[in-house]
Amino acid sequence: MKRNILIVGAGRSASSMIKYLLDKSEQEHLHLTIGDISLISAQKKALNHTNATPIVFDIFEDKVRAKEVSKSDIVISMLPANLHLILAKECLLQKKHLVTASYISPQMKELDTEVRNAKLIFMNEVGLDPGIDHMSAMRMINDIKEKGGKIKSFESYCGGLIAPESDNNYWNYKFTWNPRNVVVAGQGTAAKYLKEGQFKLIPYTQLFRRAERLTINNHEDYEVYANRDSLKYQNDYGLQDASTIIRGTIRRLGYSRAWSLFVDLGLTDDSYTIDNSKNLTYKDFIDLFLPFHPTDSIEAKFKLALHIAPHDSVWLKIQELDLFNSTKKVNIQNATPAQILEKILNEKWALEPQDKDMIIMYHRIKYTLKNKNKQINATMACIGDNQTYTAMAKTVGLPVAIATLMILNKQINKPGVQLPITKDIYLPILEELHQNNISFTEEEQDI
Amino acid sequence: MKRNILIVGAGRSASSMIKYLLDKSEQEHLHLTIGDISLISAQKKALNHTNATPIVFDIFEDKVRAKEVSKSDIVISMLPANLHLILAKECLLQKKHLVTASYISPQMKELDTEVRNAKLIFMNEVGLDPGIDHMSAMRMINDIKEKGGKIKSFESYCGGLIAPESDNNYWNYKFTWNPRNVVVAGQGTAAKYLKEGQFKLIPYTQLFRRAERLTINNHEDYEVYANRDSLKYQNDYGLQDASTIIRGTIRRLGYSRAWSLFVDLGLTDDSYTIDNSKNLTYKDFIDLFLPFHPTDSIEAKFKLALHIAPHDSVWLKIQELDLFNSTKKVNIQNATPAQILEKILNEKWALEPQDKDMIIMYHRIKYTLKNKNKQINATMACIGDNQTYTAMAKTVGLPVAIATLMILNKQINKPGVQLPITKDIYLPILEELHQNNISFTEEEQDI
Repeated sequence: MKRNILIVGAGRSASSMIKYLLDKSEQEHLHLTIGDISLISAQKKALNHTNATPIVFDIFEDKVRAKEVSKSDIVISMLPANLHLILAKECLLQKKHLVTASYISPQMKELDTEVRNAKLIFMNEVGLDPGIDHMSAMRMINDIKEKGGKIKSFESYCGGLIAPESDNNYWNYKFTWNPRNVVVAGQGTAAKYLKEGQFKLIPYTQLFRRAERLTINNHEDYEVYANRDSLKYQNDYGLQDASTIIRGTIRRLGYSRAWSLFVDLGLTDDSYTIDNSKNLTYKDFIDLFLPFHPTDSIEAKFKLALHIAPHDSVWLKIQELDLFNSTKKVNIQNATPAQILEKILNEKWALEPQDKDMIIMYHRIKYTLKNKNKQINATMACIGDNQTYTAMAKTVGLPVAIATLMILNKQINKPGVQLPITKDIYLPILEELHQNNISFTEEEQDI
Repeated sequence: MKRNILIVGAGRSASSMIKYLLDKSEQEHLHLTIGDISLISAQKKALNHTNATPIVFDIFEDKVRAKEVSKSDIVISMLPANLHLILAKECLLQKKHLVTASYISPQMKELDTEVRNAKLIFMNEVGLDPGIDHMSAMRMINDIKEKGGKIKSFESYCGGLIAPESDNNYWNYKFTWNPRNVVVAGQGTAAKYLKEGQFKLIPYTQLFRRAERLTINNHEDYEVYANRDSLKYQNDYGLQDASTIIRGTIRRLGYSRAWSLFVDLGLTDDSYTIDNSKNLTYKDFIDLFLPFHPTDSIEAKFKLALHIAPHDSVWLKIQELDLFNSTKKVNIQNATPAQILEKILNEKWALEPQDKDMIIMYHRIKYTLKNKNKQINATMACIGDNQTYTAMAKTVGLPVAIATLMILNKQINKPGVQLPITKDIYLPILEELHQNNISFTEEEQDI
């Protein structure tokens, strides 16, 4: 008797998750229905496997949605975050479990009582970030607490980067994930964190200028900028007594300072559109944001406006992007500055066919144990196999797949809308990730 | 037979308007009903005049609104801009004219056909800015066009400042008008303008740093920062052929550079609230936005974060504001950064009882006439009499009063939702303003 898994959304992040489940499909008696708005995408991910059926699936088509959910035992939503709710309500109606890799939205949280009453499990935030960050941090935190330690400082950083072997530009960066999210990163409210007991705010205008150096394993230098709300999980993680709590995004050294120039100039603004953007050249686009001068070159105006000294190496990053090209056209109608910047960057930062991505996650916890100050670091690095089984697809997808199997096999059985922060959930998932080469190296020291 | 004028809103901006109409009330057979949510405010403005009746008026009380509008011949709305529409719909229902000093909202504009069909006049933007700016600019523009000139460049600047005799702080600025509007000035979309044929954008983050020096009458130095959308009136003003169109706000030299520090630090953000803001000291508030350091003083951190050199005179402006006071409490619950900044500034920038305000308006137009390049400047400066009859109240209120009388006397008779940009309207209003000491000095030269 096969267990039916309905997977909705067969985009880039679904590849490793689907492959993992197909590889286990005989042993675990699984059948996968892989639905996507594009049949070709669904077919590609199905790998011609006998235990997979690719179908066209439009989340807004009520009949298809009802029929496919009814045939399933559990549903995995890999849809964009704002579309999970439609599927969640269908699952509630038809009494099916649900798994997502996205943050629990307020609307999703509201379903908790109903989900619990129906004895269902809606497991969320079980991807990479959120996901592996929760699980690996909770394992460290609980280990420390169990041996009687008191946590003073918690830092957690994660970044989606280009693998060293594919790194061939001055930014040491390529779009290994949704470019739009990279361009608008940090916008909205100020970033919040706690440092030595002091609550701190960083407005978007300062966010990239305030990036700090992060040295991992004593020899690898990165930098990190603060995430939106580092205190969001203070209670869930049981960090009420910590005086420092910081979560951030990892970039290679120098990225943030260069990116802050775009922020300063207004190029990342996504809140208004530019008339006649289609016919602008790249140079015209940049010149929109610079003062008029009858003779000065655009390069001089750019340097002057942004205080770039003659020998500042940030200029290598800027020059490389072809921002001042006076023949290439923007060619997008009524585009926002952010959309145009994304297009220009994409020409330089798109992955080449042979490029590999890399995920780095790093936790640093300081605690006291028997009057001694200690620090424990945990580092996870994952490099993609290729452009299908990327590090991002592996780290996002594998925990989703593992959690799905655990729910089917009743190893996860507490009902409700939840995230993977209890030991019964995170321990087996982290162990299975370890078997799949996604693991943390821990290093402990007295400080 | 008295003509009844219903005035809704008897705040600070209504004083000169009401006094003007009361002074003319015998000769012009006027009776004023002065409505405000506060009876005391209405009574104060009524000046115990026999031709004025102060009443309590709540715009949201349907019966009072219907009754008072029905008794009137014309309605003046001095309400906050977002409340005009309620009154406008009542006026339409009861076939009464309406006058406001506010920008025509899209919703107000939608009423145009109905207003015209009802043969009513809804005159808007007939205060200072918008108002006197439109009228004085249109007089210059039409004069130039009538003698065959071709306009190349149009610049228009206006500022509400402190009068020189009351100027006693390093910012050379006080809150002569709604402080909140000053604190959030420029937020939202990027400023747009046209310079020598090039369309330009300035994001909020750069707006105050990009302020430019403005010398009026060859010896008075001010500075200006760009207004939101300088091109808004390009068509209404008939400036389709101009290659430079800039509108801006006037401040005294040095203000904008100092203000840009607040923008950089995030202190003007009005989009989120700070937990526990009530118990923060001023120093705590500023420290929220600065990096943690175990020993550095807050002054050092502030200078470092904002690149303030040791002898930079901007520091005099910063120090004067008591931003680093460690005993004064914010004392506002769940306040936004902008609300807290407004409170701190208000302690230093509130008008003293004897203080006078000053309005400066300056237009600079370049044009060609018979192959000669010419420039004409027009300057208007108005100083308040005292804290009741301020320059702001005079310049906002008098054109409203004059337009109201002209509508009653059928000197303005074209129906519709409109602004005062036609000669039949602006010429008599400007002449009457001139009689009341609000006038422009024009200066023309070959360039």
